[in-house]
Amino acid sequence: MPAIIPPQFNELAVPPRLLLGPGPANVAPRVQAAAIAPLLGHLDPVYLGVMNDIQAGLRYVFQTANRTTFSVPGTGSAGMEAALCSLIESGDKVVVGICGYFGNRLVEVAERCGAEVIKVEGEWGRPLDPDELRRACAQHRPKLLAAVHAETSTGVLQPVPPLAAAAHDHGALLLLDTVTSLGGCAVCLDEWGVDAAYSGSQKCLGALPGLSPLSFSDRAVTTVRQRKQPVQSYYLDVPLLERYWLPEHMYHHTAPITLTYALREALRVVIDEGLEARWARHRRVSDAFRAGIGGMGLGLLVPEEHHLPQLTTVLIPEGIDDAMVRKALLSDWNIEVGGGLGPFRGKLWRVGLMGASCTPANALVLLDALGQILRRLGAKVDAGAGQEAALAVLAQRGPLS
Amino acid sequence: MPAIIPPQFNELAVPPRLLLGPGPANVAPRVQAAAIAPLLGHLDPVYLGVMNDIQAGLRYVFQTANRTTFSVPGTGSAGMEAALCSLIESGDKVVVGICGYFGNRLVEVAERCGAEVIKVEGEWGRPLDPDELRRACAQHRPKLLAAVHAETSTGVLQPVPPLAAAAHDHGALLLLDTVTSLGGCAVCLDEWGVDAAYSGSQKCLGALPGLSPLSFSDRAVTTVRQRKQPVQSYYLDVPLLERYWLPEHMYHHTAPITLTYALREALRVVIDEGLEARWARHRRVSDAFRAGIGGMGLGLLVPEEHHLPQLTTVLIPEGIDDAMVRKALLSDWNIEVGGGLGPFRGKLWRVGLMGASCTPANALVLLDALGQILRRLGAKVDAGAGQEAALAVLAQRGPLS
Repeated sequence: MPAIIPPQFNELAVPPRLLLGPGPANVAPRVQAAAIAPLLGHLDPVYLGVMNDIQAGLRYVFQTANRTTFSVPGTGSAGMEAALCSLIESGDKVVVGICGYFGNRLVEVAERCGAEVIKVEGEWGRPLDPDELRRACAQHRPKLLAAVHAETSTGVLQPVPPLAAAAHDHGALLLLDTVTSLGGCAVCLDEWGVDAAYSGSQKCLGALPGLSPLSFSDRAVTTVRQRKQPVQSYYLDVPLLERYWLPEHMYHHTAPITLTYALREALRVVIDEGLEARWARHRRVSDAFRAGIGGMGLGLLVPEEHHLPQLTTVLIPEGIDDAMVRKALLSDWNIEVGGGLGPFRGKLWRVGLMGASCTPANALVLLDALGQILRRLGAKVDAGAGQEAALAVLAQRGPLS
Repeated sequence: MPAIIPPQFNELAVPPRLLLGPGPANVAPRVQAAAIAPLLGHLDPVYLGVMNDIQAGLRYVFQTANRTTFSVPGTGSAGMEAALCSLIESGDKVVVGICGYFGNRLVEVAERCGAEVIKVEGEWGRPLDPDELRRACAQHRPKLLAAVHAETSTGVLQPVPPLAAAAHDHGALLLLDTVTSLGGCAVCLDEWGVDAAYSGSQKCLGALPGLSPLSFSDRAVTTVRQRKQPVQSYYLDVPLLERYWLPEHMYHHTAPITLTYALREALRVVIDEGLEARWARHRRVSDAFRAGIGGMGLGLLVPEEHHLPQLTTVLIPEGIDDAMVRKALLSDWNIEVGGGLGPFRGKLWRVGLMGASCTPANALVLLDALGQILRRLGAKVDAGAGQEAALAVLAQRGPLS
């Protein structure tokens, strides 16, 4: 007879948040609807068709012909670990570029995989210097150069082709973290020469959280095939995962069926919009939001030329309490934005305008909310000027909606 | 400009399968509905409440007071690896009991974690011999004894208290795989002395696939705390995961929000039904189904005393083609059952009557479908006698519904 008595909790009641933080973003109603299609078994022929569609859709958003392209059954960090633990054998040298929180996470995971990590550190809030990475590759001849394309902790976009050249000129593979970039700005694996990449489902792709798209080039696959040691993780072993996705469909795990339904539909949304139109939308809304922040009199961490469209880092004015503002946004406006990580804790807000959350109206309402809250807290901001500046950018580039 | 052109695929169309295989099982409508509540951020105070409810609900279904009780953001295999890689350091001795496919998976994962594995093999289709496990523990003094409670590949239920005694008498921890047992038959971690356990969301718990409930006793937590090496996985590091679930709520990964909504609601369904009533339902429906199989003239792999209620293994009659029957079930009846694994490939069907799929009507319709298909293929089965035998068992124990 059960000794532990049942707890009591009520039916779930969830407020309708506007998710304008670093992710998850809001998703389109049709994506949510897809997630409640009836469950299928993970080896059902109809489900295998779903998997094929996802692979084709991911190849499009990654801009790659890589056969080894699928979603890992876990969040973005699972994709990071799947890539690293499949590529790295104990003792391998790995150069990691670090200019934010997720660069450090690459180091942490690579070290747990047994890598000898060479850190190339840059300033948080600026991109990595490709020459420094090149020198590290020349000196250490690593197996792998790993870097973050869109650093979610700072809002910096890293130009990729120079990193690929630095790696390839010294015999290394390039592994790219595209968690926050994929679907929100150009990610062109084949054109750029990226050997391996992973992402997250819940940001600019507009799917539900819990999956990590991943793609390996033939060169990366060959590297994995030539391993002498087994991959240390079974759950995140890319070749085993791939055998489930390839036509042999070998059982490996029970797939998170409903999340893959949602991912498939999110990819359809991307296809319907078109990648370039989607990138342009993220750029336009972000430019408007940045103009609005500037117009209000607030500062931005990242200069225009390095700015990541889908994630904007706003400097918190002197004397304003981070937590108080975010609490007011959440409780009075139902808006979530992110706080700073690491050295930026309490120093900046991370505003994501990603996927279905990336609309002109959302940018404007956040400017409005921020302006009102900051004024109430005594900050000198010109909310009207912010709105005007944002509207001016939007108006320059076609209709509002 | 994108070089990879977009693929075209239509809106998702999913047939309404009756999922009577080894999982996933069908879920209650209210569980599906919970999964499309609006997304919350993974650090939203409302979401932190969802997490608390899940922890309380999981303690109830695991029958444990363990503080370290939460869901791992991946399927059952992720829970297996989280438990093993958090408990094992390179060179540790681990005794694994094997009498089916998932025992072998424990070996595979433990070896990748660097364990020296001592295998104690039993017959597939019978439980492990606790005396053999005791002798292995006495001889090798392992850190851990790992075994499967409900072997999904054979349909055998393993008695647990003798395993706990064998482990504890020789200073080992007991790690139990409860993927197929949790929510379908008694799982009493504290009463039985289980030190660590993991499960899956998509079987008898009745939630969506993609999460793995996990629970560690204080003794297991202490073992992890005393590690000298870091846990080799970052994503599946139990102490890191726990720091996200505990009141400090330290960021570790972006939680699969909608799956946790569904798990919370599934736990509410379990609480509403009551654990003992739920176990009795699984037993009753399974007994009826087994009686029906016997009445038809088909054989069962597992004798009554070792039978796992939620998963029945039916021997395929001589001369009948496994794939042809399962294809007919799927295409003509929209019913999924599982095939055999390993030595049982083509030799048996695995019938899961789990969670919301576990109803008298589902048992009867499957008996009916199997009878009709087998007769069409020339097997000698008495479908009418099967139905009668099943109905007789059901009638003995109250109303049908």
